[in-house]
Amino acid sequence: MTLEVTYRITGDDPAKVADAIRVEQTIEFPLELVDRAFIRDVVVGQVTGSRPAGDAVGGQLVTIAYDDGVVGGELPQLLNVLWGNVSMLPGVRVEEVVLPESLLVSFPGPRFGVAGLRALLDAPARPLLTTAIKPMGLSAAELGVLTGVLAEAGLDIVKDDHSLANQPWAPFRERVARCSEAVASANGRTGGRCLYMPSLNVPAEQVLDAAHEAATLGAGALLVLPGVVGFDALRLVTSDAGPGLPVMSHPSLLGSYVVTPTQGLAHGIVLGTLMRLAGADLSVFPHHGGRFSFSAEECRAIAEACRAPLGDLAACFPAPGGGMTPERVPDLLATYGADVALLIGGALHRGDVADNARRFRAQAEELVS
Amino acid sequence: MTLEVTYRITGDDPAKVADAIRVEQTIEFPLELVDRAFIRDVVVGQVTGSRPAGDAVGGQLVTIAYDDGVVGGELPQLLNVLWGNVSMLPGVRVEEVVLPESLLVSFPGPRFGVAGLRALLDAPARPLLTTAIKPMGLSAAELGVLTGVLAEAGLDIVKDDHSLANQPWAPFRERVARCSEAVASANGRTGGRCLYMPSLNVPAEQVLDAAHEAATLGAGALLVLPGVVGFDALRLVTSDAGPGLPVMSHPSLLGSYVVTPTQGLAHGIVLGTLMRLAGADLSVFPHHGGRFSFSAEECRAIAEACRAPLGDLAACFPAPGGGMTPERVPDLLATYGADVALLIGGALHRGDVADNARRFRAQAEELVS
Repeated sequence: MTLEVTYRITGDDPAKVADAIRVEQTIEFPLELVDRAFIRDVVVGQVTGSRPAGDAVGGQLVTIAYDDGVVGGELPQLLNVLWGNVSMLPGVRVEEVVLPESLLVSFPGPRFGVAGLRALLDAPARPLLTTAIKPMGLSAAELGVLTGVLAEAGLDIVKDDHSLANQPWAPFRERVARCSEAVASANGRTGGRCLYMPSLNVPAEQVLDAAHEAATLGAGALLVLPGVVGFDALRLVTSDAGPGLPVMSHPSLLGSYVVTPTQGLAHGIVLGTLMRLAGADLSVFPHHGGRFSFSAEECRAIAEACRAPLGDLAACFPAPGGGMTPERVPDLLATYGADVALLIGGALHRGDVADNARRFRAQAEELVS
Repeated sequence: MTLEVTYRITGDDPAKVADAIRVEQTIEFPLELVDRAFIRDVVVGQVTGSRPAGDAVGGQLVTIAYDDGVVGGELPQLLNVLWGNVSMLPGVRVEEVVLPESLLVSFPGPRFGVAGLRALLDAPARPLLTTAIKPMGLSAAELGVLTGVLAEAGLDIVKDDHSLANQPWAPFRERVARCSEAVASANGRTGGRCLYMPSLNVPAEQVLDAAHEAATLGAGALLVLPGVVGFDALRLVTSDAGPGLPVMSHPSLLGSYVVTPTQGLAHGIVLGTLMRLAGADLSVFPHHGGRFSFSAEECRAIAEACRAPLGDLAACFPAPGGGMTPERVPDLLATYGADVALLIGGALHRGDVADNARRFRAQAEELVS
């Protein structure tokens, strides 16, 4: 079975570039020197289609089919085949990926997904409500207090800012302990099911151990940064080797893959398909009109990739954030529907954070009732 | 002490963008809501300089100083501070990074470096000679035979193509065993010190174990793909937790960080400074005029970053490849000098590979004698 990758090629001679890509992503060897039919016809990618893009960005959309043996069933090599060396070619962008069943079976995908998270949080229909604890510079004790306030006000998930690491004023272990205790205490008072989600922004050798340690300390979910630690580390944390908690992926460092329209990979592939393949239950990305530049169309493409059929993999929640405010909630629901995890961070702190958080919850419930 | 990052900002209002960056990379929180001086003045980055770029790409070069506490001494968070969320802003590129001594002490850097590898390989003055085994699709036994031929002909390092993974026709363990045996046998015949270098293109949880397994099987060096497994996994493999072998870094997936002149990070930072910080002894990148688009100037910048003063860290070898041929060797030496690891792959297979490999070695020795 074959993996089909459609590249947008905006250079002068798309057919020549496509011929280079199908070799570059497989044998990296002069094709004319290959005398073995198996290598020439099976191992090397084969061009199976070509059509003009016919949109504002332009270029030619060329599909290359790669034999699944070239991938060997592992995510790191799947990334190499999709984009490894071609990442160094300007004027090429991955626009579509069709994964064969033979590869999809290697990836369990989201452990909870939309349905599982809704059940866990007892939120059968409304948008999920998430926020991040900030600003960096607060002590672990202060972050714990803030986490408790947000949990008590009715947020579903209170996450670390992705950039919280082992800063001296709030190191990982102490922060996770204080915030987990605060959420447990708030849930005890309210009967709620809020989850505290620490950022696994830790050294490579600690990612899996930190996931288990966080679970032991009482964290209810985990944040992973695949741009920093690799997509396969996300898969590892969500696998049976991890603690079995819901996992959110964060786009840190991944922007360079998507923001240049003629280079990189489509927004939906990086922030939807690959996150889901690696097991994310929620995928954070910046919504249109916040602090970043993603267009409304690009955001919709991410949400679509989070939910589109993909083998037997569960759908995951799009989690649009990046400068959202309570005023944007109607627009967010119009764009994404109710199967969305709303992420509002700093804006909840304009005025009384507890009041704002309670209003955020009430607003989301009203809008879908 | 502060980490100084100089961003090229090509948008309309560079001062406003810089103000957004210094907040985005630290507190991700409305600055006007911060009443604590410590957070406003220490945790948030501070703009320390601004000047017109004055080159063909244009824009303003704005320097932001970040307190070292924001990094917390770990590479994943260093990457977040340099480029994490700003990766999602078009029109911003990291052009210079100055690391304070307080952060540099956390990174031992290359274990061998230029001097250590020269001693290990008994090659005190000439360029190192490296090649890759290919094409993908050969069996492990066939790759072993090819490795032996190349080792016997006088290559210093015979590496896996980075894309060799666990393909069914040559899975990792079998490939490493066959190629290691072949090099040991060739070294026994010639008295040489050739190193076989497998690609650690394996699942996240196996990277460190595979490094040790490879060493046990007789591999003499290791290839790591930080774009796929994360820069911190490269650091881990080169640390005392690894098997203590020389390590080469490969640019797979990293092209999107460098190829757009107004976005990403400078070539020298990604393929020089960060590789060296993470401990690479050799950094592969595509030389000007091969299969990729890097300019001569960008290649020189990478080489300079491989060798420039960086705390107490050893210099690493630039390893220009990507479609090089024996005819390009004089140009390569003119560009890089003798402290270079030449990488010629497929071109050695035009005609008799053993003859070509012997001529490659003779040529390199003549040119520096």
